[in-house]
Amino acid sequence: MRHKLREHIEKIIPLTDDEFEFIATHFTTKKFKKHQFLIQEDSAVKYNYFVISGLLKLIYADDTGKQHIVAFAMEDWWETDFYAYYTETPATMSLECLEDTEVLCLTLEDYKKLCSGLQKMERFFLEKATFGFLSSQRRIISTLTSNAKERYEQLLKQYPTLINRVPKAALASYLGVSRETLSRLF
Amino acid sequence: MRHKLREHIEKIIPLTDDEFEFIATHFTTKKFKKHQFLIQEDSAVKYNYFVISGLLKLIYADDTGKQHIVAFAMEDWWETDFYAYYTETPATMSLECLEDTEVLCLTLEDYKKLCSGLQKMERFFLEKATFGFLSSQRRIISTLTSNAKERYEQLLKQYPTLINRVPKAALASYLGVSRETLSRLF
Repeated sequence: MRHKLREHIEKIIPLTDDEFEFIATHFTTKKFKKHQFLIQEDSAVKYNYFVISGLLKLIYADDTGKQHIVAFAMEDWWETDFYAYYTETPATMSLECLEDTEVLCLTLEDYKKLCSGLQKMERFFLEKATFGFLSSQRRIISTLTSNAKERYEQLLKQYPTLINRVPKAALASYLGVSRETLSRLF
Repeated sequence: MRHKLREHIEKIIPLTDDEFEFIATHFTTKKFKKHQFLIQEDSAVKYNYFVISGLLKLIYADDTGKQHIVAFAMEDWWETDFYAYYTETPATMSLECLEDTEVLCLTLEDYKKLCSGLQKMERFFLEKATFGFLSSQRRIISTLTSNAKERYEQLLKQYPTLINRVPKAALASYLGVSRETLSRLF
């Protein structure tokens, strides 16, 4: 299981065995069942999660209580309420399992220790943050310029395996359309 | 002018005079007039720009030629077509001056040299990338959950000085509404 984290980091930066041993000591493992919450709105956000197996949805509930899906996360993805995590403020979002899920957990303190202790990890997180930003910006452009059908097709092209695993209602919420509108696209 | 860059970096991480001298050698200065382009669609993106003074808009033109404003940038902000810059591919966006603008320019090669040569700069860019990501995610949530009036009010609260400087047509494009819809909000 730890080897998945090593493979993931080594896609960006090669590690020695000693370096990986040092990195691995900063993570703990947790398992969750489908429908369980890793993060609940208004609670503290202790961890950034690296997904070993399973599928998660990051949810934002608006003032009327309506739920919006901000992001999905599956194998090899990092997910948390990043704003709450980095600023140590209560969660404004929830993170819920769509499948049984196994994660590696990293506290903010251990994230900082990793970055200070091993420059390679600062490089790694810089790369992840940069591409996280690029991916969000692409989604903003897609929202500004594309209709629901086009956004669905872009998502299908970008993450084909994700689409097949996500329930249709969740997919509609992510695309910002009703379940009925999504049905008409098929 | 260089002192603005130093103040900006030192908001995140303190520097010695020698460190700042090293950093400053990686930047060049450019001046642009209102309506000039720093980046044009389909061209190479040589620089990431740190804005010393002025105001910019980052534009994405869709297949029908309609222009969408993806971002604004003013003093102390970094702006470029980040995807094109990091992946060294042609620009899919344009960057245009809304006011006379002075920038410091950083090539990708010099960005990499800065990160390798001074760990503090890797830390600095990690912090900027992280908060760039958080800010994009906040905008996605805002798009999913708020109407144009609410989005306008959020923007006004977050960046009051920006709103007063941006032409109304550009603001409407950023918010994804027509100029007429925006007028009705005032």
